[in-house]
Amino acid sequence: MFDKVVIVGVGLIGGSFALGLKAAGAVKTVVGLERSGEALARALQLGIVDQAYTTPEQALRGADLVMIAAPVAQTPAILAGLLPWLEPHTIVTDAGSTKSDVVANARAVLQERIAQFVPGHPIAGRESNGPDAAIPDLYRGKKAVLTPLPENPQAAVDKVAAAWRQCGAIIHVLSPGEHDKVFAAVSHLPHLLAYALVDDIANKAHADLLFQYAASGFRDFTRIAGSSPEMWRDISLANRDALLGELDAYLAQLQGLRACLADADGPGLEAVYGNAQRARRAWIDAIEAAEKPPAQESGTE
Amino acid sequence: MFDKVVIVGVGLIGGSFALGLKAAGAVKTVVGLERSGEALARALQLGIVDQAYTTPEQALRGADLVMIAAPVAQTPAILAGLLPWLEPHTIVTDAGSTKSDVVANARAVLQERIAQFVPGHPIAGRESNGPDAAIPDLYRGKKAVLTPLPENPQAAVDKVAAAWRQCGAIIHVLSPGEHDKVFAAVSHLPHLLAYALVDDIANKAHADLLFQYAASGFRDFTRIAGSSPEMWRDISLANRDALLGELDAYLAQLQGLRACLADADGPGLEAVYGNAQRARRAWIDAIEAAEKPPAQESGTE
Repeated sequence: MFDKVVIVGVGLIGGSFALGLKAAGAVKTVVGLERSGEALARALQLGIVDQAYTTPEQALRGADLVMIAAPVAQTPAILAGLLPWLEPHTIVTDAGSTKSDVVANARAVLQERIAQFVPGHPIAGRESNGPDAAIPDLYRGKKAVLTPLPENPQAAVDKVAAAWRQCGAIIHVLSPGEHDKVFAAVSHLPHLLAYALVDDIANKAHADLLFQYAASGFRDFTRIAGSSPEMWRDISLANRDALLGELDAYLAQLQGLRACLADADGPGLEAVYGNAQRARRAWIDAIEAAEKPPAQESGTE
Repeated sequence: MFDKVVIVGVGLIGGSFALGLKAAGAVKTVVGLERSGEALARALQLGIVDQAYTTPEQALRGADLVMIAAPVAQTPAILAGLLPWLEPHTIVTDAGSTKSDVVANARAVLQERIAQFVPGHPIAGRESNGPDAAIPDLYRGKKAVLTPLPENPQAAVDKVAAAWRQCGAIIHVLSPGEHDKVFAAVSHLPHLLAYALVDDIANKAHADLLFQYAASGFRDFTRIAGSSPEMWRDISLANRDALLGELDAYLAQLQGLRACLADADGPGLEAVYGNAQRARRAWIDAIEAAEKPPAQESGTE
């Protein structure tokens, strides 16, 4: 049970974390902290937060847990703003989509207080953003990846894990570097590819005709291109090395398929398409097997 | 009202066409025609077809309309098999995902009977295949693109359009070449890209770890990689020239994004991501506006 949880960034991610804790009866007071008053007012109105502040001093007083749910590029400035008011018992965590850069920035800002920072990343999202998109069940059955630091006391890690479990999430643990390599491949690259395709089509002279015939396959393929451009610019830059590696591997793959096409090499195309279909089916089967029984939580912690 | 409709290929596409006509009370008898007895038996069992044949002679006797719903590479062999038994009043159409190659093959096979062939392509699908996946509403509110030939009498085009309208589809008309360019961009290229990504990941040494963290964004992005590899090999080859053009444009786009990443060019990335997000939003808004009022059908025929 938390007495006071502070949410820095009361949008979809931070708001849903607050609502999840509230729905579980796991928190007495949720405090919202933002520089902008508009989202704060909406979060108060929606019952996501009980108190709202635009400056940290009062917000942090007596806080058990601080969740930073803001674009990763803002993390160092946010941490620097919190630091003067950070009480020794308060644990800070985040929900940033990249971890190596967040950890490096946190070390630089927090210095010897780094032990109080337990980095994390919930694997959940929706197409819409802002406090109005927040829902209590966003994390139910989803993974929350923690990338604890050697300096973190186990009790601090446990506290963050407990909060995520109250939201219904399943705890996974990776190192920051492992995390970033994995998500470069399965999340950051697909986002870049989807944005690239929509921009490519939108810039063609006959874009209107093309979009007229785009159907459900295109809609699903490009759903992630509906995400915030600023957020994904920051993620792309924050995880640049790993993303470049994945992009280069993918470009080599496309060049191979281009050669198959140019040579009318049907078996070559079918080998790639068939392997992909089988791998995806095995993956979907594994997801579906893991989803039943639905209430079971089997973390890999 | 059709007395007798013949479905060549009683899978998802042909089966749903049959069920749509039946649900509308628009056909007296639906006949299934396949070389393989297994799908035919299932289609009979499911009530998709009323009669089933593995050879064309009896199947075609007195048919008003023949729908070829088979992989595009099989179209010439199917047409050659039908030709000896094709009665002068029978109209043949197809549901192939490419049109220029189908038309060229149809001309070569049917010769002076080409006037009886009205090429088409319904823009609808599901992740699953086969007769069990067929549903009467698959085409409701979806586009059916016809690419009529100069030789087609208007009555023949009208007959095919009427059948699709009975299934709830909205008729669009393009030339075969226009059709292939459009679908290379909005369908064939995304399929190739999705297959390429899943195969790329599946071939990595740590594929299991990667798939473990792939989430809903990856699932949607790669949904079309669950499609039949044989079918998409055939489509890729049948529409090779247009697909190569689109792939090359996309590769150039990715090289541009790679340069932005390598240079840590945030504004460059954001320009592409932001343009893509805006274009996708405008497209989704247009789709949603077109979908209400839901019952209205405003074809561009």
